[in-house]
Amino acid sequence: MEKINVRAKFDLFNEHWSPKIIAELNGQHVKLAKIEGPFVWHQHEDEDELFFIVKGRLKMELRDGDVILEEGDMLVVPRGVEHRPVAEEEVWMMMFEPASTVNTGSAGGERTVEEPEWI
Amino acid sequence: MEKINVRAKFDLFNEHWSPKIIAELNGQHVKLAKIEGPFVWHQHEDEDELFFIVKGRLKMELRDGDVILEEGDMLVVPRGVEHRPVAEEEVWMMMFEPASTVNTGSAGGERTVEEPEWI
Repeated sequence: MEKINVRAKFDLFNEHWSPKIIAELNGQHVKLAKIEGPFVWHQHEDEDELFFIVKGRLKMELRDGDVILEEGDMLVVPRGVEHRPVAEEEVWMMMFEPASTVNTGSAGGERTVEEPEWI
Repeated sequence: MEKINVRAKFDLFNEHWSPKIIAELNGQHVKLAKIEGPFVWHQHEDEDELFFIVKGRLKMELRDGDVILEEGDMLVVPRGVEHRPVAEEEVWMMMFEPASTVNTGSAGGERTVEEPEWI
């Protein structure tokens, strides 16, 4: 049982759109990601997803309007809700979601990371 | 679906040892707590618990040694592991845990909060 420093974990990688796992509990993962630019529209059929912004400003596009998230903000995107994260400049974010969650959800495609790395 | 600002939520309460729920997903709750002083030794039989320090310095006492957590640190205490949070000065922390988790676990007693308030 070791403590995890979130900032230090962010210093371990620079790739964009490649989530890293930092903790597991109750079948859920805590993941970190650095992102920049637009992602793909997708949804998760069976998983709610929590986004917490550590640095930067994220636009979460939703079919019925956008939500702007800044440092210290969180958003829960419920299962079945289509969303597309867009970062005009680099964003660092922490996610909390079931271990089964794949980044592109039911959209799939080349940006899918099937087995995120533990850091 | 509304964004949640964690700092603003902390401004809504001042009681110590009274966890507040700010989000729910996948049967889990995100809770905030302000704490000061020692808590009671306890364990959760069926729930892993994540602590993330937003402000201050937390000593997590464990039967085989203490872990000191500072701002930006997190710790997962697995189910069945006895622990006692101690805050020499006020600590603000965020927790992720199953919705069924009660603050005093199997210890019970007067410091139990059976149904935390949503804020």
